[in-house]
Amino acid sequence: MPDCIFCKIVAGTISCTKVYEDANVLAFMDIGPISPGHTLVIPKKHYESVMEMPPGEVAAMFEPVGILAGAVKAALQAHGVNVLQNNGATAGQVVPHLHIHVIPRWPDDGLGFRWPSKKADFAVLGRQAEAIQAALKA
Amino acid sequence: MPDCIFCKIVAGTISCTKVYEDANVLAFMDIGPISPGHTLVIPKKHYESVMEMPPGEVAAMFEPVGILAGAVKAALQAHGVNVLQNNGATAGQVVPHLHIHVIPRWPDDGLGFRWPSKKADFAVLGRQAEAIQAALKA
Repeated sequence: MPDCIFCKIVAGTISCTKVYEDANVLAFMDIGPISPGHTLVIPKKHYESVMEMPPGEVAAMFEPVGILAGAVKAALQAHGVNVLQNNGATAGQVVPHLHIHVIPRWPDDGLGFRWPSKKADFAVLGRQAEAIQAALKA
Repeated sequence: MPDCIFCKIVAGTISCTKVYEDANVLAFMDIGPISPGHTLVIPKKHYESVMEMPPGEVAAMFEPVGILAGAVKAALQAHGVNVLQNNGATAGQVVPHLHIHVIPRWPDDGLGFRWPSKKADFAVLGRQAEAIQAALKA
């Protein structure tokens, strides 16, 4: 993608602080870290969202993420790790090249989510599950 | 794991509103939804965190997540989707059986993150990347 900043990082025309690379992905330090050690994992091939990516490529992209999350946790002596992948501006995606955030966490780090869970209506859950299953078959 | 609620769901001794199942994963509606359509994807085999899981199993667990996220988005007519996987209580993990949240999002849904990004010091990023690479080799 000509004007994509992450494609330029993959091509090497924009530099990054690289952490890991394999045939499918590149991992580097986020230059706007949410917490110390915040790392991004991106596929080398351009996709905007995980919904557009063939399942085999989704698998290959996530394959090293457990090991990377463990290495980030160990290196930064973190207590926990969020693995987050946002699809669409509405979901908080800023760069329109699919990426996975690996975010180390500590007690009382002041970070977190603003999303209280609600009590479910099981009839509603059933209808939603049917709609999702129908969409899976479409 | 005898006392794990998600292992009991996999075994069928606790019911769930199932959305999808394959050899490796089970996907079902979260009974405490953050947003309408909030779906969980869990590995059938018990792991507490993604850091403990062999890379091939991480890949297999995430393989259907793009298609599932697309189906959730289509079925609920959402605008965006967060894919979130929390490791450790400090990171917001409640049930200690590895799980992936698929969270549909809409404009002005009131949800979001409380984690402002900071401006990075590149010397610090370099040292962190070296520590992570050393941990990857350990």
